[in-house]
Amino acid sequence: MHLNIIFRFVGILVLFLGVSMSAPLMVSIIMADGASWGIFYSILLSLAIGVLLLLVTQKDPDSHLNHRDGVAVVTLGWVAAGLVGAIPFLFTGAISGLTDAYFETMSGFTTTGATILRDIEGLPRSIVLWRSIIQWFGGMGIIVLSIAILPFLGVGGMQLYKAEVPSPVVDKLKPRISDTAKMLWKVYLSITFLQVILLFAGGMSLFDAVNHAFCTMPTGGFSPKNSSIAYYNNSYFDGVIIIFMLLAGINFSLHYRLIKGEFTIFGKDPECRFFLIIVAVFITMVTLNIYGVVYDSFTTAFRFAAFQVVSIITTTGFVTADFEAWPILSQSILIVCMFLGSMAGSTGGGIKTLRVILLIKHGYREIFRIIHPHAVTTVKMGRRVVPPEILGSIWGFFILYLILFVISSLIMASIGLDMISSFISVAACIFNVGPGLGIVGPMDNYQVIPFTGKWVLIFCMLLGRLEIYTVIVLLMPEYWRK
Amino acid sequence: MHLNIIFRFVGILVLFLGVSMSAPLMVSIIMADGASWGIFYSILLSLAIGVLLLLVTQKDPDSHLNHRDGVAVVTLGWVAAGLVGAIPFLFTGAISGLTDAYFETMSGFTTTGATILRDIEGLPRSIVLWRSIIQWFGGMGIIVLSIAILPFLGVGGMQLYKAEVPSPVVDKLKPRISDTAKMLWKVYLSITFLQVILLFAGGMSLFDAVNHAFCTMPTGGFSPKNSSIAYYNNSYFDGVIIIFMLLAGINFSLHYRLIKGEFTIFGKDPECRFFLIIVAVFITMVTLNIYGVVYDSFTTAFRFAAFQVVSIITTTGFVTADFEAWPILSQSILIVCMFLGSMAGSTGGGIKTLRVILLIKHGYREIFRIIHPHAVTTVKMGRRVVPPEILGSIWGFFILYLILFVISSLIMASIGLDMISSFISVAACIFNVGPGLGIVGPMDNYQVIPFTGKWVLIFCMLLGRLEIYTVIVLLMPEYWRK
Repeated sequence: MHLNIIFRFVGILVLFLGVSMSAPLMVSIIMADGASWGIFYSILLSLAIGVLLLLVTQKDPDSHLNHRDGVAVVTLGWVAAGLVGAIPFLFTGAISGLTDAYFETMSGFTTTGATILRDIEGLPRSIVLWRSIIQWFGGMGIIVLSIAILPFLGVGGMQLYKAEVPSPVVDKLKPRISDTAKMLWKVYLSITFLQVILLFAGGMSLFDAVNHAFCTMPTGGFSPKNSSIAYYNNSYFDGVIIIFMLLAGINFSLHYRLIKGEFTIFGKDPECRFFLIIVAVFITMVTLNIYGVVYDSFTTAFRFAAFQVVSIITTTGFVTADFEAWPILSQSILIVCMFLGSMAGSTGGGIKTLRVILLIKHGYREIFRIIHPHAVTTVKMGRRVVPPEILGSIWGFFILYLILFVISSLIMASIGLDMISSFISVAACIFNVGPGLGIVGPMDNYQVIPFTGKWVLIFCMLLGRLEIYTVIVLLMPEYWRK
Repeated sequence: MHLNIIFRFVGILVLFLGVSMSAPLMVSIIMADGASWGIFYSILLSLAIGVLLLLVTQKDPDSHLNHRDGVAVVTLGWVAAGLVGAIPFLFTGAISGLTDAYFETMSGFTTTGATILRDIEGLPRSIVLWRSIIQWFGGMGIIVLSIAILPFLGVGGMQLYKAEVPSPVVDKLKPRISDTAKMLWKVYLSITFLQVILLFAGGMSLFDAVNHAFCTMPTGGFSPKNSSIAYYNNSYFDGVIIIFMLLAGINFSLHYRLIKGEFTIFGKDPECRFFLIIVAVFITMVTLNIYGVVYDSFTTAFRFAAFQVVSIITTTGFVTADFEAWPILSQSILIVCMFLGSMAGSTGGGIKTLRVILLIKHGYREIFRIIHPHAVTTVKMGRRVVPPEILGSIWGFFILYLILFVISSLIMASIGLDMISSFISVAACIFNVGPGLGIVGPMDNYQVIPFTGKWVLIFCMLLGRLEIYTVIVLLMPEYWRK
């Protein structure tokens, strides 16, 4: 363990967050929304903490981050970001109480989108913007984590991406994380920018367009409107957001390759193809299920089905319809979407398409093996054979997900939630979706969850977002032994 | 495929069932319950079908059952038994309609215990007995299947038992299935007999004692009483049945070894220890959760908690309390029990302790691997290293379970069931438990399930009971190719 370098990294992160609070500060001053002093003091405190962390640690160009340090940097980075990011909410009085402020901030940084706020439109504009900026930063963190860090830690099958990281360095065994990150961030920034323009061009106010774009690309789902995208009831906005949610649910290295001229990459990549097919199938099923029952027009049924399915499967969590009023089949499909999630290497959560495909292929292989007991069988992804160790690490990942899911649901049940709400609130947080069913349904809000429950869900968001292992290993005594 | 020998086997099975209907026939005549003629004609029809099957197939001492034939024999055997077993229900008018009669019979042979009957006490005594005999036979089938057949088919980790089958043959590579079966049936018969005596000695009528014992050992859960064991409200009966349900949930080879003098085997066997610890933990949790809320006396709370937990985790399905009125935590624990199930090699269903342990160990190994990326890691069971292929086959099994579970639940949702009922009715049937929650709760009944739903659930019972693969491979075109 190189605690020195770990805390130095956290210090830099805190400084960065402090500096970036100047954006909401400017907005606050321009709009005179009354939050300026609160944000100003937040910046001061954040900078002070950051400087302090840099002062107590030394610059040490020789020390390298090893496997273990990587895990600690990631987890502590997210936890610390949650604490610092919460300061403006507390100092401006937008949210009272550490639990609620930390819940909202972690929901942002983990791009979950679960909110405890009842009246977002009543908040200072600068604070609404800060909330969106948090999600946008969270998304940037996730891209680097999932494409540049997790593959090298060997977490839950992400090893498969080792060779696929688009790296400007020729020697692929040593891709330079910062170069990869910069490249992918350019893609992320460009798509965000494009979405702002398209929403603005359609008549959305610049402020709302920026906020929605900032919360779409990280598949976050915070909205400056209390009723989310349903506020507009506008097919154009729905269409634009559906497309950008889908883009956000696709592996960002594919976007990079698309920009580099591989125009058919979405269809060629087996994971992407599977993801798009699943989305299409679920949209069709939900459309047919709600058409004539909830909506009289087929087009309307399709529009609402597409929005909700895409929003949930990409784990964004924007809402245009109260799907709790839909038939049970549609609700059940949306629950399945929560679990499946989007592509690995995207900003989306859930179990992820890559793993779902490999799990299914593995199941099929066993059927084949029973029919042909002496045949040698392998699981392939595209044309590559997936080594058994990688399958094993996906299974390990999957079972931990399930165990933590069950334990968390039991805790939620023990503090008095009904069965659906216990189960779904955990799913909505561990898969980083946001809205769920029951007391945390699309028209409800996490404010009603009791104190203990909020902390359980905060832990779930972190677990899910950091692919479980990154958090769990830190809790093992084994990890801290020399 | 040796269709000849497969159908010959089915013919023998049908004959056997026909002959065994003479037991209820005698009861019917003695008790003059009015079902005698119906049962008589059922015997005639069954014998006719059996003889016909033997006539159209030839005795061929040279042909061996291979892997593939084994699968077909098992699945077709169960399906055929369900059809023949249903005849007495139809001929005596006890159940009208093939769907309901087949549902009840398959629920019996798969030892599920889900019932469509509303008034069991109003049925002819002979038919009630036949229902219990079906479950008892189902249990005998399962013991042979899980200890003597599945290990050799290599289904879902059961390979681990290959070496453990208590076989009188010295050469362990060629254990003679029929000898193993006979040995285990003796154990099964002895325990059943002991339970009849204990229940009878406590004051239960002989008829009820026999029926309950016949439905305990196969972890079936049919009862001659409409309100199941709750009818008696008797601590002695509860205690006896709790102990025998637990015994039924333990691997029958351990019982055999216990009888042979290994008195500490339950504590020494890692799977059994884990099973008993889990049961103890869940009983404690439920007791503490319902004490003071549902029951004022701690002893009463413990008694009802123990009964329900043991009944559900062994997938028996007897009921002494309306657990739908319990706090959500207790209900959630019972759902977890449904999924976990009892030990492999017992008559119980669910995912099974063996697999649960290996899944957890596998998850832990991955945590270890991330902390020590260069260490060589293995998963052990007791002192034996579990080969990766076996882990792989457990995972394959597990994912198929999940996929079929999700698809079946979606179908149930699409035909109009509420969410909890869709989910739980499938769980209660695929894990062969019986009673569930929602519209199939402990005080309800499967009669309300629509036509399509009943067939889906019949399929689920069969899938779960035959460890999925045995049914699924028959549906693959691959299987039927030469």
